[in-house]
Amino acid sequence: MRNKELVVDEVADPRPAPGQVLVRTCACGICGSDLHALQHADQWVEMSSEASDLGDAGMPTPNVMDPSQDVVMGHEFSAEVIEVGDNTGNVSVGDLVVSMPVVFGPEGLSPVGYSNDYPGGYAEQMLLSDMLCLKVPNGLDAQTAALTEPAAVGVHAVNKSGITKGAAAVVLGCGPVGLAVIADLVRKGIEPIVAADFSPTRRALAQQLGAHAVVDPSDELAIDAWRRVDGTSRLVIFEAVGVPGMIDQAIRMAPRGTRILVVGVCMQPDTIRPMHAVVRELSIQFVLAYDPMEFADTLRAIAEGELNVAPMITGTVDLDGVPGAFQTLADPDAHAKILVLPT
Amino acid sequence: MRNKELVVDEVADPRPAPGQVLVRTCACGICGSDLHALQHADQWVEMSSEASDLGDAGMPTPNVMDPSQDVVMGHEFSAEVIEVGDNTGNVSVGDLVVSMPVVFGPEGLSPVGYSNDYPGGYAEQMLLSDMLCLKVPNGLDAQTAALTEPAAVGVHAVNKSGITKGAAAVVLGCGPVGLAVIADLVRKGIEPIVAADFSPTRRALAQQLGAHAVVDPSDELAIDAWRRVDGTSRLVIFEAVGVPGMIDQAIRMAPRGTRILVVGVCMQPDTIRPMHAVVRELSIQFVLAYDPMEFADTLRAIAEGELNVAPMITGTVDLDGVPGAFQTLADPDAHAKILVLPT
Repeated sequence: MRNKELVVDEVADPRPAPGQVLVRTCACGICGSDLHALQHADQWVEMSSEASDLGDAGMPTPNVMDPSQDVVMGHEFSAEVIEVGDNTGNVSVGDLVVSMPVVFGPEGLSPVGYSNDYPGGYAEQMLLSDMLCLKVPNGLDAQTAALTEPAAVGVHAVNKSGITKGAAAVVLGCGPVGLAVIADLVRKGIEPIVAADFSPTRRALAQQLGAHAVVDPSDELAIDAWRRVDGTSRLVIFEAVGVPGMIDQAIRMAPRGTRILVVGVCMQPDTIRPMHAVVRELSIQFVLAYDPMEFADTLRAIAEGELNVAPMITGTVDLDGVPGAFQTLADPDAHAKILVLPT
Repeated sequence: MRNKELVVDEVADPRPAPGQVLVRTCACGICGSDLHALQHADQWVEMSSEASDLGDAGMPTPNVMDPSQDVVMGHEFSAEVIEVGDNTGNVSVGDLVVSMPVVFGPEGLSPVGYSNDYPGGYAEQMLLSDMLCLKVPNGLDAQTAALTEPAAVGVHAVNKSGITKGAAAVVLGCGPVGLAVIADLVRKGIEPIVAADFSPTRRALAQQLGAHAVVDPSDELAIDAWRRVDGTSRLVIFEAVGVPGMIDQAIRMAPRGTRILVVGVCMQPDTIRPMHAVVRELSIQFVLAYDPMEFADTLRAIAEGELNVAPMITGTVDLDGVPGAFQTLADPDAHAKILVLPT
């Protein structure tokens, strides 16, 4: 990302500091956040800075990128260790690894993929923190392993929802976030899962991942589909669209006592009608990312075949194909997750 | 309430149907909802109708008033039973009672205080359901007993918050709702309780009820006061103001993982910035009213001296004083709770 555009260029070879390892990127998913960061870099920076300012006292907060300088994005990656720095030992040369997209360095904590100092997974090579690397187990292939990060977002949202067997789920939006939520709901035995998306491609993926009812909201509202197939279970609604108006839509449809999980990231101010939430005593839980244990659990669950996310991959491109892939992803009907294969 | 104005007039004597008792109103608090219903009757009816439409299948939903017909408001009452209908036996003539403000009749369930059929507590006499009446125990006086209803709102909000000892509370707004929340937080041993209100009268009441720090938001933000006196406990924020912008203010100030209880009733559409809630994984619980067990527990707790709400009473008026009291309450600095003494 250079001057708010994507360019493919050579950058300096990264060199591992103590505690870091140099890796060759095997695969890296393109995330909707990357599209957003490219289009609204200043807003992104403002929000990240604010998030850092508001962090907990004593918690490390990542450095925030300067979008006027080069940024190599990409934070959903798998990689092969090709060199280890001093004071390492968790992983070794040749290991296939994934990592939460943050790296410790002399300058503090930096996000991998939104940093001017550390290239992300749309580079051939990256620096990772040895202690944050997880070896990919069970012979899992590098492309599926690269889904650990987006899948962990779904795992975390489902964990935070507190949903248990016997409850039902409505998932609004079947982009990568919604699909990751569905995959984890399936793993946890939730039934029925009712999913809604305008895109036939995404609805087909939701069904393939195990959603029990899948609707086009222009034909039938998700809540009506839930009433048709269930209508009595305790309900959790996952809002995974992230555009203005969706939280209010979720509020409007939610039965009394429903818990709404806001997983979609709406950057703009948004309008809700609080009385609609008051009269039915709704709760809204906003979620972000995942914690390290959830990230590790997600990798393990994918590798052991418990968490079926591989169908999310709908295409691959090489480095030269990245700018075109960003344009392709602007049309939600064409793809779910495109992986960049830099090497 | 006649043609959107308050008038004092004679209405027909109510007669108890089977299962009902006739009571003489001893005291009835004026609620902010009554002020709102008077000013925005149509909006009120629309919202109540919607709440009824969206109710749970199989749950009784109260009849909705027609504001073009007479309504005798008042739903925070204590009363003396003066006559019992057929098929009664829970309470007897002479008993001092309180009741949740709903009554069963041949026409279904009606709200007491927002009905064209049943006069509320700004009348000399009311009809109540025998089986919903609770005898006031322990010699509790009628005026304090009339605080059961507003106090139960606070008890319910605190219950729904899940707050436990070791956590801290910030209460935004020290009107009757915020004061009821504070009283129940004190009862449950929460410390510190930080309360904020622009009104010196209300701040003094908050302090009298046991808030540990009380601030004028034009001098110091509630969250800064919390940081000053605590700053490390898990935090629950109670939004008890209920005007547009307050939910976003609560979001803006909340530390990571905070639970926000929306107890104030904002009737208008409201704007929030979801990203601020996302980056700190906030949750927002909307609450309304109380359940029957909470109502009974509130009466017991007041009568046994566990729940100190009596200081909320800042004035009394007779029936002729009701219209004037509504005007007085428009100025938040003059009063917290005014009781109507109809007889």
